[in-house]
Amino acid sequence: MNVALVSAPAIRTVDVIRKKRDGVELSRTEIEYLVRGYTSGEIPDYQVAAWLMSAVIRGLTRAETAALTDAMLRSGEVLDLSEFSAKKIDKHSTGGVGDKTSLVLAPVAAAGGLMHTCGCAMIGQTAEIAPADRKLYALRDVTGTVESPYLICASIMSKKLAEGIDGLVLDVKTGSGAFMKKEEDAVFLAELMVETGERMGKQVVALITDMDQPLGLLVGNSLEVAEVVDVLRGAGPQDLRELCLELAGWMFLLGGATASVTQGKQTAEQLLRSGKALERFGQMVALQGGDSSVIDHPRRLPQAEHKLDVLSSRSGCVMKIDCEAVGIACVVLGGGREKKEDSVDPSVGLALHKKVGDSVVAGEPLCAIHYNSEARAARAKTLIEASYQIGETPPTKRPLVHRVIGKTGDQN
Amino acid sequence: MNVALVSAPAIRTVDVIRKKRDGVELSRTEIEYLVRGYTSGEIPDYQVAAWLMSAVIRGLTRAETAALTDAMLRSGEVLDLSEFSAKKIDKHSTGGVGDKTSLVLAPVAAAGGLMHTCGCAMIGQTAEIAPADRKLYALRDVTGTVESPYLICASIMSKKLAEGIDGLVLDVKTGSGAFMKKEEDAVFLAELMVETGERMGKQVVALITDMDQPLGLLVGNSLEVAEVVDVLRGAGPQDLRELCLELAGWMFLLGGATASVTQGKQTAEQLLRSGKALERFGQMVALQGGDSSVIDHPRRLPQAEHKLDVLSSRSGCVMKIDCEAVGIACVVLGGGREKKEDSVDPSVGLALHKKVGDSVVAGEPLCAIHYNSEARAARAKTLIEASYQIGETPPTKRPLVHRVIGKTGDQN
Repeated sequence: MNVALVSAPAIRTVDVIRKKRDGVELSRTEIEYLVRGYTSGEIPDYQVAAWLMSAVIRGLTRAETAALTDAMLRSGEVLDLSEFSAKKIDKHSTGGVGDKTSLVLAPVAAAGGLMHTCGCAMIGQTAEIAPADRKLYALRDVTGTVESPYLICASIMSKKLAEGIDGLVLDVKTGSGAFMKKEEDAVFLAELMVETGERMGKQVVALITDMDQPLGLLVGNSLEVAEVVDVLRGAGPQDLRELCLELAGWMFLLGGATASVTQGKQTAEQLLRSGKALERFGQMVALQGGDSSVIDHPRRLPQAEHKLDVLSSRSGCVMKIDCEAVGIACVVLGGGREKKEDSVDPSVGLALHKKVGDSVVAGEPLCAIHYNSEARAARAKTLIEASYQIGETPPTKRPLVHRVIGKTGDQN
Repeated sequence: MNVALVSAPAIRTVDVIRKKRDGVELSRTEIEYLVRGYTSGEIPDYQVAAWLMSAVIRGLTRAETAALTDAMLRSGEVLDLSEFSAKKIDKHSTGGVGDKTSLVLAPVAAAGGLMHTCGCAMIGQTAEIAPADRKLYALRDVTGTVESPYLICASIMSKKLAEGIDGLVLDVKTGSGAFMKKEEDAVFLAELMVETGERMGKQVVALITDMDQPLGLLVGNSLEVAEVVDVLRGAGPQDLRELCLELAGWMFLLGGATASVTQGKQTAEQLLRSGKALERFGQMVALQGGDSSVIDHPRRLPQAEHKLDVLSSRSGCVMKIDCEAVGIACVVLGGGREKKEDSVDPSVGLALHKKVGDSVVAGEPLCAIHYNSEARAARAKTLIEASYQIGETPPTKRPLVHRVIGKTGDQN
């Protein structure tokens, strides 16, 4: 056989699907072929749906996950931020109830000299950044293929890396209010994202953080902004403040601004104390067309018409708060979307008076409901009452940061 | 909660997919919902593709397989043959090289008083019989979800049971020329089909038969018809004749025409010897608009222009024939389709002079190639030469019927 006459055989989509179905590792070329073909519309939904299901059940190797991430990030525009001399460090959270750290971290990082993408603007996903992810996510949503750490990793990392960043701090939540209820699942996803980022030449560190109760005391759009301003003034609830400092510390370390996380935390603390972070926040709000006067006059934020206290039926100690139930209560009030077409009421939400470990007397308020509809408030009240567990002895406190994952995890 | 006010929640396709993805058994209602929704076009290809992949990887339980078969068979017309008093017994083969038993069995069964679907006509799949299977098969073909015993079982059994039959004899082939190369895979599929048929109240028996070399001596359309006529005249090659008698014996037993398989085989043998089966064959050909004069003048069947002998390069004994390679050689000659749009040349094919266990002298012909194109003949020759393994000592003979599976398997 004359080797020169033998051309590489064309890839057939069905063969790629069968390979993954049988648990065989796909090559980078095969994964690129799938992503490119799907983005351009040459490969139909039904073939990608079958492939996604095989990937969910069989899993992806680290090399496949990196290849998928890379193909997805290169499916659209990749931001070139090389004209900015500062290090581009971003932060991503897997999300939780009362999770408002981004609004604190963006001005802190920017004030500290890091070029944080949120230092310019809080951006949503656009059609230009990783369009393959947008198309794949819509398909995953209707084909039961959302719940896969490999696909979640590729989705998050492709978008983040398309931003042209140098480093990334990941806040991977675990607990009753997180997407990953079990710590082992959170750790698995975190390790996957760290390794994927490192394979692509980026500095990535992941913090496994607690989401077994809401972060901070306020849940709901306006309420959370008010709490962010509190933290930026150097006050605010202890857990929220501490997590912001921890994440900022890692961002400063990864960006080369400080030699250790501890130094990074000190820098962040100073930026809060000096008012420099708050100043940046005001600039950011103004630049994005917002009313920065709300910083000094938080009452100018949308306010709910009514307030209702949920009282404790017994004396004791708060053992547990079902964090997911608190999140659902906020959605029920209108503070989040139950269906895509729902509008969001920024004024409603919950103000927690008691958190896990706090002692409480019968009749004392556990939580205040900020509402605009009696019917919705009644549903939220039932949820909140059921979410608080009051017991006799104080529970063992869960740490705020459970673990740090990443090669830089030892530099403290 | 007032039970009367609680209506059954609507089934969501994505929930059914996720359930199977996680290895949870689906209810009959959920499977019916999928099949009905897909057949009507309400459930799109991409959702069914994801479900099919989850079913291939996770497998289906016996109850799920029966429910799928039932839903598919009821997706279209179910033939009502109850006006015929004779038992309706059908036969199905998973297919192989030189497998021509149906053309012998149809007239034998009909002459023996069984209402065999092929006693009236050799039918292909129609749009009215199990349309869900047609649509599902087309999707499986392009999504890498063909190779699943559960889906293969549901596909075969839904079509067969939609024919309104009372009993079914399955010829499940195993060996190098069969779809199931490994005996354990053939047995698994056979058991699945027998149990599925029994769950639906039918008498089903499966014979695991040998397909490690071609059945009979002739491969190709005209050549196979000629060999069928030989068997119907009471002659023909021993293995083909024996398998036809065995399958017919089981059909007569299941149809209640005889008390045992042995008696059934004797009946079949008599129908061949008396010429009654051949007579039926002639009627069948004429009724379907064919030229029944070919029975007495087989030369009137399409004949290839050229013949070429493949000679043995050494003396010894035929140890093995790569049965799949023989099948491919016939396709290469134009006797089968490589692509959907190819036409079939009925005149070409292969006439085996030597089979496994036969002794051969160097220079003696192993096989004759009947061809119309020199280039194709050359490719076929290479394949045939490579497919014959000549050795020193005669190999252990593989039995024709490896096993019989089914509750009636003990009645001999």
